[in-house]
Parts: sequence; C-alpha cells; structure tokens
Amino acid sequence: MGFAREHEFLKELGLGPRNPGCFVAGNWRGSGPTASSVNPANNKIIAEVTEASIQDYEDGMRACNEAAKLWMQIPAPKRGEIVRQIGEALRTKLQHLGRLVSLEMGKILPEGIGEVQEIIDMCDYAVGLSRQLNGSIIPSERPNHMMMEMWNPLGIVGVITAFNFPCAVLGWNACIALVCGNCVVWKGAPTTPLITIAMTEIVAGVLAKNNLPGAIFTAFCGGAEIGQAIAEDTRIPLVSFTGSTKVGLMVQQTVNARFGKCLLELSGNNAIVVMDDADIQLAARSVLFAAVGTAGQRCTTCRRLLLHESIYQTFLDQLISVYKQVKIGDPLEKGTLLGPLHTRASRENFEKGIRTIKSQAWNILIGGSVIESEGNFVQPTVVEISPNASVVKEELFAPVLYVMKFQTLKEAIEVNNSVPQGLSSSIFTRRPDIIFKWLGPHGSDCGIVNVNIPTNGAEIGGAFGGEKATGGGREAGSDSWKQYMRRSTCTINYGSELPLAQGINFG
Amino acid sequence: MGFAREHEFLKELGLGPRNPGCFVAGNWRGSGPTASSVNPANNKIIAEVTEASIQDYEDGMRACNEAAKLWMQIPAPKRGEIVRQIGEALRTKLQHLGRLVSLEMGKILPEGIGEVQEIIDMCDYAVGLSRQLNGSIIPSERPNHMMMEMWNPLGIVGVITAFNFPCAVLGWNACIALVCGNCVVWKGAPTTPLITIAMTEIVAGVLAKNNLPGAIFTAFCGGAEIGQAIAEDTRIPLVSFTGSTKVGLMVQQTVNARFGKCLLELSGNNAIVVMDDADIQLAARSVLFAAVGTAGQRCTTCRRLLLHESIYQTFLDQLISVYKQVKIGDPLEKGTLLGPLHTRASRENFEKGIRTIKSQAWNILIGGSVIESEGNFVQPTVVEISPNASVVKEELFAPVLYVMKFQTLKEAIEVNNSVPQGLSSSIFTRRPDIIFKWLGPHGSDCGIVNVNIPTNGAEIGGAFGGEKATGGGREAGSDSWKQYMRRSTCTINYGSELPLAQGINFG
Amino acid sequence: MGFAREHEFLKELGLGPRNPGCFVAGNWRGSGPTASSVNPANNKIIAEVTEASIQDYEDGMRACNEAAKLWMQIPAPKRGEIVRQIGEALRTKLQHLGRLVSLEMGKILPEGIGEVQEIIDMCDYAVGLSRQLNGSIIPSERPNHMMMEMWNPLGIVGVITAFNFPCAVLGWNACIALVCGNCVVWKGAPTTPLITIAMTEIVAGVLAKNNLPGAIFTAFCGGAEIGQAIAEDTRIPLVSFTGSTKVGLMVQQTVNARFGKCLLELSGNNAIVVMDDADIQLAARSVLFAAVGTAGQRCTTCRRLLLHESIYQTFLDQLISVYKQVKIGDPLEKGTLLGPLHTRASRENFEKGIRTIKSQAWNILIGGSVIESEGNFVQPTVVEISPNASVVKEELFAPVLYVMKFQTLKEAIEVNNSVPQGLSSSIFTRRPDIIFKWLGPHGSDCGIVNVNIPTNGAEIGGAFGGEKATGGGREAGSDSWKQYMRRSTCTINYGSELPLAQGINFG
Amino acid sequence: MGFAREHEFLKELGLGPRNPGCFVAGNWRGSGPTASSVNPANNKIIAEVTEASIQDYEDGMRACNEAAKLWMQIPAPKRGEIVRQIGEALRTKLQHLGRLVSLEMGKILPEGIGEVQEIIDMCDYAVGLSRQLNGSIIPSERPNHMMMEMWNPLGIVGVITAFNFPCAVLGWNACIALVCGNCVVWKGAPTTPLITIAMTEIVAGVLAKNNLPGAIFTAFCGGAEIGQAIAEDTRIPLVSFTGSTKVGLMVQQTVNARFGKCLLELSGNNAIVVMDDADIQLAARSVLFAAVGTAGQRCTTCRRLLLHESIYQTFLDQLISVYKQVKIGDPLEKGTLLGPLHTRASRENFEKGIRTIKSQAWNILIGGSVIESEGNFVQPTVVEISPNASVVKEELFAPVLYVMKFQTLKEAIEVNNSVPQGLSSSIFTRRPDIIFKWLGPHGSDCGIVNVNIPTNGAEIGGAFGGEKATGGGREAGSDSWKQYMRRSTCTINYGSELPLAQGINFG
Repeated sequence: MGFAREHEFLKELGLGPRNPGCFVAGNWRGSGPTASSVNPANNKIIAEVTEASIQDYEDGMRACNEAAKLWMQIPAPKRGEIVRQIGEALRTKLQHLGRLVSLEMGKILPEGIGEVQEIIDMCDYAVGLSRQLNGSIIPSERPNHMMMEMWNPLGIVGVITAFNFPCAVLGWNACIALVCGNCVVWKGAPTTPLITIAMTEIVAGVLAKNNLPGAIFTAFCGGAEIGQAIAEDTRIPLVSFTGSTKVGLMVQQTVNARFGKCLLELSGNNAIVVMDDADIQLAARSVLFAAVGTAGQRCTTCRRLLLHESIYQTFLDQLISVYKQVKIGDPLEKGTLLGPLHTRASRENFEKGIRTIKSQAWNILIGGSVIESEGNFVQPTVVEISPNASVVKEELFAPVLYVMKFQTLKEAIEVNNSVPQGLSSSIFTRRPDIIFKWLGPHGSDCGIVNVNIPTNGAEIGGAFGGEKATGGGREAGSDSWKQYMRRSTCTINYGSELPLAQGINFG
Repeated sequence: MGFAREHEFLKELGLGPRNPGCFVAGNWRGSGPTASSVNPANNKIIAEVTEASIQDYEDGMRACNEAAKLWMQIPAPKRGEIVRQIGEALRTKLQHLGRLVSLEMGKILPEGIGEVQEIIDMCDYAVGLSRQLNGSIIPSERPNHMMMEMWNPLGIVGVITAFNFPCAVLGWNACIALVCGNCVVWKGAPTTPLITIAMTEIVAGVLAKNNLPGAIFTAFCGGAEIGQAIAEDTRIPLVSFTGSTKVGLMVQQTVNARFGKCLLELSGNNAIVVMDDADIQLAARSVLFAAVGTAGQRCTTCRRLLLHESIYQTFLDQLISVYKQVKIGDPLEKGTLLGPLHTRASRENFEKGIRTIKSQAWNILIGGSVIESEGNFVQPTVVEISPNASVVKEELFAPVLYVMKFQTLKEAIEVNNSVPQGLSSSIFTRRPDIIFKWLGPHGSDCGIVNVNIPTNGAEIGGAFGGEKATGGGREAGSDSWKQYMRRSTCTINYGSELPLAQGINFG
Repeated sequence: MGFAREHEFLKELGLGPRNPGCFVAGNWRGSGPTASSVNPANNKIIAEVTEASIQDYEDGMRACNEAAKLWMQIPAPKRGEIVRQIGEALRTKLQHLGRLVSLEMGKILPEGIGEVQEIIDMCDYAVGLSRQLNGSIIPSERPNHMMMEMWNPLGIVGVITAFNFPCAVLGWNACIALVCGNCVVWKGAPTTPLITIAMTEIVAGVLAKNNLPGAIFTAFCGGAEIGQAIAEDTRIPLVSFTGSTKVGLMVQQTVNARFGKCLLELSGNNAIVVMDDADIQLAARSVLFAAVGTAGQRCTTCRRLLLHESIYQTFLDQLISVYKQVKIGDPLEKGTLLGPLHTRASRENFEKGIRTIKSQAWNILIGGSVIESEGNFVQPTVVEISPNASVVKEELFAPVLYVMKFQTLKEAIEVNNSVPQGLSSSIFTRRPDIIFKWLGPHGSDCGIVNVNIPTNGAEIGGAFGGEKATGGGREAGSDSWKQYMRRSTCTINYGSELPLAQGINFG
Repeated sequence: MGFAREHEFLKELGLGPRNPGCFVAGNWRGSGPTASSVNPANNKIIAEVTEASIQDYEDGMRACNEAAKLWMQIPAPKRGEIVRQIGEALRTKLQHLGRLVSLEMGKILPEGIGEVQEIIDMCDYAVGLSRQLNGSIIPSERPNHMMMEMWNPLGIVGVITAFNFPCAVLGWNACIALVCGNCVVWKGAPTTPLITIAMTEIVAGVLAKNNLPGAIFTAFCGGAEIGQAIAEDTRIPLVSFTGSTKVGLMVQQTVNARFGKCLLELSGNNAIVVMDDADIQLAARSVLFAAVGTAGQRCTTCRRLLLHESIYQTFLDQLISVYKQVKIGDPLEKGTLLGPLHTRASRENFEKGIRTIKSQAWNILIGGSVIESEGNFVQPTVVEISPNASVVKEELFAPVLYVMKFQTLKEAIEVNNSVPQGLSSSIFTRRPDIIFKWLGPHGSDCGIVNVNIPTNGAEIGGAFGGEKATGGGREAGSDSWKQYMRRSTCTINYGSELPLAQGINFG
C-alpha cells in the first residue's frame, strides 16, 4: 500500500504508510501500540505509526545513557558543528517538512514553514553559542586562590512537546541541549507522530554521517506512559515539558521528588491592551494574527482583548469587519488564514466552551459555531465579556477572543495580571510614559511584554517563557542555555597556605 | 528580672529577658506561644520570646504587601543605599552580634563573628549590585523593533532559615532581595529567636532612620505553622528555604502548587578526596576544619573522607593525632575548637547514629561518645566504613566523619557522586590533569567543587548552593540575584509596519 | 600667618596657608615652584602650594613602582575594602570638601557637594566591583584544553585631571584603578591645588590606617612639565587624561609612541534638540541647568540649542525669561545659580568669544558681557546663530548658548552630529518613533544620548565619555574597568596530546 | 594567454592571468599600476593584477559610504544571514582557496586550508553573534528614568591586512564588522593580490545573490598609497591594521589625528618557557610548530626559547634532532613542513639577520643559511644567545629561534616580559603553582598566555591580540565586537519631573 498522491512528498522525508515510531540506539523500531496520523482538515488517516513500548523506552535510555558519556566529552565547538549540519539538513527539507507540519498539525502552510525556519534559526544561533557557553573567573578574597564558575553538561535532557508546535519546541530545546553537551530524549505529541519521525530522521542522518552514536538523539512516539517514564527516570536530570498547566504540575512534582529539574512551558492566557491613542489599524491586524493564527492554538494566542472605552466601539467594528474576511479552509491552500482545530476532541472542546459562554449569557459578537465538514473547522469567535467571568481565567485552546472594556491604564494592567497564567501580553500605545510603566515593576507580570506587536511571534534571540501558572521556564535565547547545564562554583588553592574566607581563624 | 551577668551584652542588641518575637508593620509584638532561648553549652535559658500567631502573620503580611508597592518603585541604587546603611549598622554591632550567635547557636566565637562579617560583606556587595541589575538590549530581526530583557522586582521574598547559620543565610537572601526591590518576610529558626530579633532590630533601625515603612522587613519567630503559612501564601512569589531535604521537598511542592517559586538550600553530604600526591599537612588541616568546624553542623561539613590507598594509613595517623588535640568546650572561650551540638535532640541524634554505626560493625577510630555535661557536647568522631554502607548516604548532622579507601581517581569520583546530595566536594592534589578532570563533565557533580581547600568556607562572590537533593538553588554572588526578580522579554515596535518573526506572512 | 576667617574650615581638611604639594612615598613634600590658590569669586589668594619638581616626580614614581608590586598581589576584595574605607572617610568630610570645591573651583555649593558625593558613590560602586572583575572560561575546541580570559592589573595608572571637576574625575578613575589592582599617580589641575591636597590627604589617611604604603596613591600639584613626565613615563601603562582636545591629542601621541594606552575625556560641544511635541517647561529647565550650571564649564555643558521652528519663539521667550532670573554671585551663597568663571583667563576667553560672535554679526539675545567685579563673573548668554557658523564648531568654555532653528528630525540630527566633538546630546520629545531613531544607527553620534533630560548630570552606573574629538574613553560604570586591566587569553593543555585549532595537522 | 597547468584551479576562484584588482561599487576595475603575483617557491609570476588608483579608491569609498546608510539599518540577524551565506560559499571553495593561499603566500597546504577554515569558523561564530550584540539596561538612580547602553554600527571599517595571513585576518575583522552593521573597505597585502581578489569574489557573489549593494564590501589591491588614503579618510571611523609596529604606529597617529580609532595587530616576539618538570616530548613538538610553522612568519611564531638549566641540554639535543628531520620544499607538496619565505626581500632580511648574529659571535646550533634555489627557502635556525642581546628584542620575520637558559621562574618571566612586544607566550610545566603564577599579575605580560601548547594556533572563541608594541587590539571572539560599534549611554526620562543625579538641587 502506498500514500495517497497528495502525500507522496512524505517519502522525501523518509516516511511511509507504516512507520516504526522509536529511534533507539540509532535504529528505528517500535513494539508498542499502533497509532494513526490523521489530517485535521478531513480526519482521514495519513499514515500509521508504531509507538514505543516500555521495552523500547528502556533500551533507548540505556543506549542514550552510554552515548551521553561520549557526547559530553566532545568539545562544545565540535558539538556546534553537528548542530550546524542539522541546520543545513533542515534547510534542504524546509518546504517538505513545513508542508508536513501543515498537513498533520493543521496550521496554515506559511506557519508550517515558519515553524521549521525557527529550528533552522535556532541551529544557527546554537552554533555561535557553542563557543560562548562561558563560565566566569571571579576574584577571590584569598591570596593564591582562583575562583571560577564552570558549566558542565547535565547528561541527558528529556523533551516532551505538544501538538501545536510539533517540531519548533523540540528545536528550541534540542539545539541548546546538544551544544551544551547533552543527549536528547524526545517524546513528541501522540497526534503528530509523522513530524516526530521526519524530524528525528534528519538529525539521525547527520549523526550517522559524522560517525556518532544515533543514541545521542533518542526519540519516541507515544503517550502518557512514556511521558511518565521520562518524568520518573533518574537518568534524566532535566525534563523540558510543554503542555497544560495541569499536566505540567504533575510532571514537576514527579521530577522534583527524584531531585530532577523541570523546564516548564505551560498554559497562557494572553491579553492585548489597546489604549485610546493606539494605531487602530496596526492593533486590529495584530489582534487578528494573535487570536486567529494557528486557529487559536498557540500558547501565545491572544485570548483577551482589553479596549479603552474611548475606542471600544470603533475598534470592535473594525475587528469584526476584519474577522468577516478571514478565509477558512484547507491549511495547505494558498490564502487560507484559518485552518482546522487539531483534533475532533479540540472541536468538541470548543463547542463545550461556547455552551458555557452562552449559558452565562455573554454576548457572542461573531462566530461561535463549528463548521460542518469532514474536518475540525470552527468559526473565529469574539465574545463581549466581563473580566470577572470565570471562563476568562481559563485557556480555551481555540480561536475564541474575549473582549473587555477599561477606563484607566491601572485598571487594564490589573485585568491583564488577574489570571493565573503569565505568558504573554501586549499593549498598543504611542506614549512613552505608558510604555515604560507597562514594562516596569507595576506593569504586566508576564514573561513576554510587548508594545505595538501581537502577543505571539517571538524571536529566538530573547528568552521565551512565562511566569506563574505558565511554569517559569525560559527557552531559546538569552541565558536559557544555563538551564541545560550544571553550574559549579570552584575554588583552587594553588598556594601552600590555608587562609579562610571572612577572615575566620580556625585552630 | 534581668539578664545573668554574662548576658548583659544582649541589652546592646535591644534584647531583654522577655521579647516580643514578631516585627509587624514596623512594630514589635507577638501573640503566639512563648518559647525559650537556650544556651547549648549548658541548656540554661537565656531569655524568652513570644512567637508569632497566625494573626500576627496575617497582619504582618498585609503591611508587607502594602510596603512592597512602594519599595519596588524606589530606584535600585537608592535601595542599595539602605542596604549600605544596614551594613554600617552591623559593623558597629559586629562583636555583640557575633557573641550572640556563639551563645545561642553554639558555634565558636570566631565562627560567630565570621558569620556576621559575612552579612556585612553581602551588604557591601549588594550596594554595588544595585547599579548592576542589568537587563539586556537584544538585536531584533525586525526593522524598527527594539527587543529587551528587563528585570523587575517580584514583590515579596519569604526567607526561612535554619539554626546553623541563624543570620548569615538571612543576609545572603535579604541583601540581594532588598536591592532587587523586594520586601522580605523572614522566619528564623525556632531555636535561635534572639538572633532573629537582634538582626531584625538592626534592619528596623535603618528603615526608621530613612522614614521607610518597617514592613519592608517583616520578621517572625515561630515554627512549622508559620513556615506552612509562608509556603501557602500567594502574596509570596519566591520562598527561599534552608533546611533538610525532606522538609524542603514539602515546601517546594506546596509553593509550586500555587505557582510560586522556591530557592532551596537543603542537605549536603560532602566528600574530601585526598590523592596520592596531596600536600598531607594542608589536607589534614582542611579536613579538621571541614569535619569538626561548627561541630559538624554546616551544610558544607565534610562527612566523607576518601583516601588514596597509598596514603591511607599515613593520612589517618596524622588526622587522628590532630583530632586528639581538638579542644572541646564553651564556644565563647578562647581556644575552643569544638562547641556543643545545638540542642539536646541533636545530641540524641548523634547517639542514635553511633548506635547504627556500631550495629553495622563499622570501625570507630576515634570518638563515638557524648560528653557528660550540662551541655550538648559530643566527641569528634572518625569511622572507617565502606562507601556502600547505608549510613554514608545520609546526612548525620554532627561531627562524624566517614573514611573510605580508593584506588583510582575514577573510583573516587564515582563514590563522591554516589550520594543523593550534591552540595560541596573537594580534592587534594597537585596534578593539573586531575584538577581539570575533577572540575569537568566527568568530575564532581556538586555545586561547589574545590581543590586544595575544605568543602566549607565559601566566599560570597561565587554562587552558593548544590545540585540533586541539595535543591538546586544558588545564593550570594554570581547571577543569584536573577532568582529574586522576574524577567520579561519585551519587544517594542516603534514603526508603523507589522513584520513578523521567522519571515511569516499572515493575512 | 593663618587663614582668613572664612577659610578656617580648611584646617579640617589638613590644609594650611602654605602647603607642600606632593605626596611622595607616603610623605608630603614639594621642591618645585610655589603656586597660589585663588578664589575665582574675588581673585584673592586662599593659600599657597609648593608644586612638584622633576626630582619629586622621580622619587614619587620610584616608590609608586615598588608599591605596585605589592598592591597588585593583594586580593581584589581586600583592595575593595580599602576603597570602602576611602568612601567612609569622604563621607565624614563631605561638607568641608564640597565647600572647598566651591571655594577654589568656583561652582555653586550644591554642585561642589554633589561632586564629592559622586566620588563616594564611585567608592561604593567599586567595592561591589572588587568581587566582579570577572574573567571568562570559554569553551575550547580542543579536548583536554581549558580556555580562559583573565584580567590582571596594569601596575600604575596616571590620572591627569582638569579644574572643572577637580576631584570627581579623580574619583571615577582612582576608585576603579585601585580595585583593579593599580597604584594611582595623580596630577590635579594647577589652579585647584588645595583640592588635590585635601583629597589626597583623605586617601593617605586610609592607607596609613591599614599599614599600606602611601605610595599606592601618589599625587603631584604641578603643571605641564609634570604632565609631560607622566605622558613619557614607561612605568605608566595607562594615562587617563581629562582636558582639551588639543592637549589630549598631544598626550595620546606621546603615550602611544612608548606603547602605552590613553583614556581620554576631551572637549564636548553638546546639543539639546527640542521637538515640536516637547514638554516646554521640562525642556527649558533642563537647558538652564545644562547651559548655565557650573558656569558653562562642564564638558557636558549644553552649548547648542536646536529648536523646532514651530516652538522656536515660544521656547526662546520662556528661556530668556528664565535666564533673567538667574542669580549670579558668590557660589558659596545660598540661592546663587551662577558663580564666577574659574580664572581671569577664562573670563578673557569669554570676552574674546563674544567679540568674535559680534564681529560675525550674530544676534545676542541676552547676556554677552562680563560683570565688573573683583571676581571672574560673566553674564549667561544666549546667541541666535546658524549651524554653519565657525564658532559653533568650537567649545567656548563659558555659559554661552547658541540657538538654532530646524524643520525636521533628520536635519536636527545632522546638525547635532556636524561638530568634531561627540560627548553628549539630548532630545526632548514624547514620540517613541523619534526617541528610538535618536538612539539608533542614524541618530546622535555621541557617547551620551539622552531623552527628556539635560546633556549633563550623568549617573555613575553607566559609562561616561564620548566619541570623535572627545577621545573615545569611558569612565565610571559599565565595563569601563576593563581599560584599567590587561586582558590575557589563556589556554591550558592539561592532557598529553597536542591537537591544533582549525583542525590543522602539522608534522 | 592562459594559466600554467598547475594554476588551472584558479579559474574556479574567478581568477585569470590578468585581473582587475579593485571591487568598487559592486564592479571589478583597476586603473592603478600593474602588479605581479609571484610564487615564493620559484619566484615565477602566477598572474597579474591592476592595483587601485586614488580615483578607484575615491569612487569605491563614495559608493561604500552610500551603502553604509542602508546596511546599518538592516536588522543584525539579517546581516548575520548574509555572513552565514558567505561561510557556506567559502565551504564550497575551501580546497581551492586553501591551495591559492599556499601557492601565493608560500605556507604549507594544511596551513593554507586551515586559514580558510578559520574564516568559515568566524562566519559561523558571527551568525550567532548577530543575535547577541547586546546592550544593557542599567538601573537608574532617578525615578521614571530608564538608563541603557546601546551599541550602534560605526559605518565603515577599514581593514589593512598583511601577507602572512592574507585572508584569515580579513575574516576576523570582516565577519564581525559586517554583523555589527558596518561596511568593509579592505586593502590586502600588495604581494597577495590573488587571494584578495578571490576572497572578495566570494563575498561579492553572496551580496549579489541577496540583491544587496556590492559596495558593502569594497576591496583594493594596492600599496602604501591606498593604505595612507584609508588612514586619512574621515569616512572610516575605525581602521584595523595588521603589520609591523613601525608602520602601525604611523597609521595610529594619522588616524588619531582625525579622531578615528585603530585596532592594531603589530609585531610579536614570543617566548616559550620550558620548566624543569615539563613534558619534553610535548614541548619539543610545540616549539617546532611554533618556530618553524609558516616559515617563522606568523605574528605568533615562537622566536625565543627559554630553557630551565636542568633540562637545557637534553631539550636542545631533542630539538636539534627534530629540526634535522624537517622536510623543506614546495609548500603544496604533501609532507613538506617548511615552505619558502614569502619574498626575495624576506630571504635577504634573513641573511642580514644571520650576519648580525654572527658578527656578535652568537652560537648558531643548526641552520643559518639560505638554500640555493629559485625560491626563497632558508634553513630553520636555532641560535644560542643571551637575553640581553640586542637582536633578541627585535622581530626577525623568519624561522630563527633564539635559545636562552634560566634558573628560576621569576627570571624566566622577567626575560619573557623584557621585550617591547607583548603578543604571545607559553610555558611548559605540570605544577599548578607555576601555572597560576604565569597567568597572574606577576606572570607573562602578553595578550596570549598559554600553558603546554605553542605560542601560535589560537582559537577564534577567545580574543586575539597583544599588549605593548603589539598594539593592544583584540580580534575574533570574546567582546572584540565592541570595537566595531559605537557605544552610547542613554537615559530616557519618561516622567514629568527633573530629578538630578548625585541628589543635586539646581534652581
């Protein structure tokens, strides 16, 4: 049996109609349950994948643990060279891989390609970083002593990713983890196994070409059982988890109990504040991208829109008119802005959310329905609501935007900060005093604090992540790499005396 | 009723025979249980303290929360000036406060004074830091965009400290927390309330002199109930906890469940490795300071001694002869090297530990008994043991040193890394290849990795803390301050276009 | 013979009517010419000073060179402690020393005290820095190699300061130079010898108290001959020079010819740009402080005022009315805003400048005359002029402000950048697009680029200095300290192989 | 007319028998004198090149100046993408370009290829750097003020390179200069014009492919006249010059006089110290590579060998025996270790040097003669000499090694530091106390301070450059990029008050 014609391109990514879903000790295998990869635009099966069994996992981890001893001794710039080659390999597959992301996840093609581009950018960035994982030499108060801060690899980093960024989040983590000297154990989302396999195949090719153990990059298709195994595994000092706050907290408690560390990227509930002096045009375009992009399934999706009372109606009118023009349809088709939700369950979740909104009598300005079709399409939806409504505190993972009115900046910031999550936030204004208050101690409490751009669309050079229920992790740029290494404060006495700090005299 | 004559100096620290134990909204009060401060050298009561009730706590937190709004808006260098004044105030009380530490905690006087000196050093350091809490400006890939990483105060930092460093650990945390723009809520150890009060009194004086709300520094004497309240309090985004791994894990789970963060300094189980080429003299002096100092009650106390087989007997002979000369007695007396354990319970714990050791038939080379007296004195003890013995994996908070033999560096490192804790470690050698292996990816897995100095006695310029069961926090120098602030990645669009990252084209 | 009564306070600073002007090897002496310290407010002699002969210089340098060997070996945090004590000593003399600055230099008392406060701030800052003079550990591409960047002291730093900041500039340099492990050789301005002596006396006291060689801080009153000796002295790897561009260039060429380095703070010619949307009130106050403060004798004095045509007249009217209220008089008197120029020669220079302005028929809006008195008082002056006028390109060291009109931001920036100097600049606006353009690649080309504050009044936390004819040096905060140290890139091979970089195979 | 057959590969690099030598405004041209590229191995002409006239220069600079306005506005990560493509283009030409370097410069092929690899490494490094050209946000002491340190492009960087690294030094400078937002004006060495052209051709291809002005990279073949024009050109704020100390000083004075900056990489006179405990084998191999590599024409070539008296004779015996096996011959031939000197003049300079050595009666242990042939071959030479000999203070650019004996480390360091130059230095020892003394304040005064590796062969991650007569510049890694940007300290007041620093009250 072969692929449907429109899926022929998958062969270029090493995929077939049936695929083993585990990359273990440099080989593909899979002895767990069989899962189907489904096209969210029509709920038809694209291909099948054999997921990991616990035996696959154990064998993979054993090989990975061995490989770690080797990999951590390779000089960092040499590791950087491997990551550079991964970037080059991705470049040659950019279109195909982007297309697969769009096909299997459901986001529109420009976003699919953008997601792969982001890993390529991460590779380039990590190559430079491989010569800059700098420790410090710190002046010692003791003569003939040298004090240093050194950074060493952790060994193995576990990466558990979610369906909405099925490969970019792996890229954020793996590029950094690898140059830092760690092996990577990846569990992709259960519903995007083809991306997991295709992405792994590319990394595997580079490792093989360089005669390095494939186990340096170990990957599993699978679900909660494998996730749990990773969380409990004492061979994995760091688990990077992307997903819901609820599951993230459980992972964290499991990992902490065995004295491991977590890097969490959990739920967002991101607001855009539009001040009375805002560039309305710019703000409306931004809200559209932020609320409808990726069908509202980004962690940085704008879910709350705070409008100053003086521009409230003008802005809403403009926004609604923009919403009306959104082209919904096959994400691979040129011109589509809104593809399907990722799964039938997501669609049901949307319906459930809308039912709650209606039951509480909030005003649906546009949208609010699923679109009858083979796929998981829903209407982009805008709801007038109060900031105190219970639904506003939760992340409904769909293109549903809550609109609220405010009078003062102080009030807007209070509403912005009033939810448990703390990922992203944005204000539209042209007044420096407002901008710097928004950025300051009494401003937005999020990890991402924007001005005149949407809540989403972060660059890799900065640290990505959020506070409070979002989990506190930081990925990609800035000093995020430090989380992937262990720090030691070292003091060498090269003299023959034993002076003590704080001038203590002992014995 | 007044003080016994030898306690008269406590008046200089604002202490009396009966003391309210809560500094709430700038006033001293206390409506909880009455506790006694006891001298570990004779188990006599020094003075009494009224601990915090939950009402005290709640009132204190309310005031602190108000004060936080003000304090975070004061420019950092101005906050630095306040911390500078705290340092100056401590300088004038150095002798008295050091004496109190020695009296109430039981450590010898030079260590008591050294502990206070460490806070003074921290103040000086924090003053400079108050002009260096730098964010970054990061090149944006989008024209007319400015990307920045900003650091803002958290608001309130909770600090829970342990009896063994009853004021230095507060200093590590509070000096940094304050310049970072946070108010501090401190719960000192239940058995060192006088130090908590005396230390707070000094800070309070500085705040008052500068017409600042006393609630910026809020302090409670109290036990588990207040600790639990801090762990659960959503007004406290960061809880810095020093104590046992067991309690630390519980605090962490409580704080994480409410989306707060922890900075943990938990148990250590620190080894010194002596290679065949070591300077034996230097190593023996270091082991003595590391194993017997503070009566073995430092988190950085050396508990495990790994000796190369070729120098095993020579070294032990020398160590035993040094141990025999250790003067045990009143910690305030000149010449004493070993004071009492902190409490009668600590002494019982020592006895229990020795019983286990004996029951497993390990060889006690010296010591092994309590000393009959009014106080909590025990003998400094050395035990020959196997690295696989169960007792070796645990932290017995007393001057008990386990000695083991090894043949190769690899073996020594494996033993060093074989315990759950990962705080401090030290090697004695003069070979660069060994030194750098010890510091490298396959070396010690601890947060503190020393060469030719003891495991204890860290300088404030480096980051202090450990990995694994030690909790992963870092205090004092380096970039420890970042834990006391929230980071935001900010992008300002000052143009009129909306270019997207990764070159995405949307709509 | 004693002091006039109003100079009695000078005794508190260790000054008398006759003073030896060299601090050589820890002793005061002076065998060069006798110079008089003159009060600019009345041109009466305050006291006399014996300047340095070349023999004094040579003896001083020999001792300093010896002291350098010791000082550079003292651990940096211990050096920081000495600087901390200098700060404390200055605190106790703040009022007296500030008064002397005002008396001898001629600036108003709040500025005199502010100048001393700035050294105190520098001391506090340098103390923190003494634990943060960090080198780096950089990942090596070769196995068993450790690459590091180390910072070591230079040995001796020569500091040549100018009359306008007779002690703060010493503070910027000496505080950093000292913690970096360098001895300091200071030549103060010939017309402010009492400040040189008083300031040195304070440092000397601290050194003596700590049993350190006085030669660590060596100071000379003197003129060009001593300056030349410093420039030529191969024992001084770094010469920090503050003064005119003309002399600075000569110093630089002399120092470079002997392979030494210079840190130059030369002439400024600083503009304030006022946009059409500016806060006029704020801008006018700022221009007053920037143009009239220190009688126009700051290197950061605003000399050029660029007004948008739409607010040109309004702004000028307001400025002139503010200028009319400026109280001119004795700088020590409360309420005085404008004291005398520093010397009779400065006054003559002002007159010469005004003559040129008049000869070119520019429009003097206010001021333009000297004030007949015993002192060196002149009127604060505003001149309407074209940006192309030759006088606009030069620094007239007096309170003369050139006003120009512009139409576009681009034009304003071009004018701002059209002078040889590049020290400070400021814009007044409330539009983010203008602010960030002003700060960006096509904005101001100065070292200091302000928004809505004057050109002067820098904080110590940032790096102070300017580009182009201003000399390119940076003092005070940021990474300025690196100029006071020598950097070495170190690679240690601790293995037994000899792998080569860039994968080269040799032999 | 075509190439000789062995030069056919040059066509792949875009070279022909006659080549215009200027890349001006994106086009190749040349209206100056004709120069010949000569093979140092046989002094035969390889090809001819038309050098730049002043008119070529002026046209090139005008276009470059225009291009600078555009280039500096392109976001840094986008500039990084261009540099990445340059690296990729170089990768495809690595063998050919390496071969050309070997052919035209005369270094052996592995070194020729290694030199090109170094530029490729620099490109990779610069790509990462393009997202890390970070400024700082510094805490302000004034409320409602934001203090920042920004880095902006300079505009144009002039790069004047020397024959010995005819393209790597361009790479160090251009990769960094370009990502920093600067256009590059390059003058290659007059005797390596083909490399200048081939290298430029590669960069030009990338610029063209990206529709960017070719003038962003402007290149001239030429001599002193063009060098002088660059030094005097006020459009070039930074001139990076590599060459002799004598010429470098002249360039510096010219550039400084017009208020420009220099980055100088001048002469070295580098010593290797061999201690009594050294690994003799490792040290001897290192000395061979350091003294004979590139025929002694690296700036980091080891010219002085300091041997501890106890191993003096043993070491020399071993070294001489190694020297005897050095294969001299065609640098393109496999197995050759020593190629020709670069020019006939270099050969004559060697002869002159040997004559001086002989006239002073120093003992030539091996070598000392030119080799009669068509090429510029000379014998690798070792001379026993006193550290006080005048010739030891100078850089003789040929494979001549001076050997000296010492007794103590102190003495060895004094000799190491006794020359005017301060580039590189190395010690061979296995004692930590010696290692850290060598790296410390009383150790080597060079910019490069190695342990157990040669003086040459630096990695790009560190800063490359030296002190004293070597000029003080730093290229490649670490914070070298800062030299290619202008720094501004910016303060934004976003409030409506005007508080002054240092608490000054004005008016």
